Amino acid sequence: MGVCNWCTLSENEKKWLLIKNEYWLVYLADQQDYVGRCILILNRHCGCLSELMDNEWMDLKHIIKRLENCFKTVLGADLCNWSCLLNDFYKKTEPNPHLHLHVRPRYKNPFSLNGIKYIDEEFGHHYNPHKENIIDIDDRIILYDMLKRTLNE
Amino acid sequence: MGVCNWCTLSENEKKWLLIKNEYWLVYLADQQDYVGRCILILNRHCGCLSELMDNEWMDLKHIIKRLENCFKTVLGADLCNWSCLLNDFYKKTEPNPHLHLHVRPRYKNPFSLNGIKYIDEEFGHHYNPHKENIIDIDDRIILYDMLKRTLNE
Repeated sequence: MGVCNWCTLSENEKKWLLIKNEYWLVYLADQQDYVGRCILILNRHCGCLSELMDNEWMDLKHIIKRLENCFKTVLGADLCNWSCLLNDFYKKTEPNPHLHLHVRPRYKNPFSLNGIKYIDEEFGHHYNPHKENIIDIDDRIILYDMLKRTLNE
Repeated sequence: MGVCNWCTLSENEKKWLLIKNEYWLVYLADQQDYVGRCILILNRHCGCLSELMDNEWMDLKHIIKRLENCFKTVLGADLCNWSCLLNDFYKKTEPNPHLHLHVRPRYKNPFSLNGIKYIDEEFGHHYNPHKENIIDIDDRIILYDMLKRTLNE
């Protein structure tokens, strides 16, 4: 099946780490299609939700609560869109999926960061899965610092 | 906020019930965009994942396992796409969301039902959120019976 890239993230990817505990790693996603989008990666190789252990599942609940609360209070998000898809792994002849979830905060009102207003144009509708990144690197660093500080208070 | 339609499903909607327990209701979705798509509805009014109680969350894990196993063995699905979005509720001025999840089984190979081959044309990619229903009512009844029987064995 080959090496799992999700088990061996690069140092460049690791610098966006927001939460790390025994079971889960939470990163600010490269692709900020919706402001604050994060990826939750299980801290061991496991292919689907069915194979999660009870303690991993219970810990996920705590992390979901921590993130939803942070997105609502710090970013002013109205709700969060959660998904666990794993599709990309199945492009390969021998899929070797590594369980992860995506969370996209959604905003009724524009979110202001560093003088720029970010508008969730699809609010009230399914997120656009083809939407590109909307935040430049400088603002992504500011966003990361805001989230990191609050999540680790 | 008005009445929650998810707390008071119609008899017509209830006839597609696959699983009912203390915490969750699982229905075969009206919109069969991907064969076997189901909706998991919390059996009480609650607005987001953060507000789930521990026993509801643990029971969800068991239901996920039961459904993934069923989709793989009965329908030959390769994986499942899970999502918890709640966007539609936020179209209203005073949103009153009722927690539910969607699951879409995904298929590398065509799935045959009643002489018809259903092809997952987006396999390996994000599901198409705008895809229409692909199963007529007769085949939906056959599908429902297959799933109901296996899930309740």
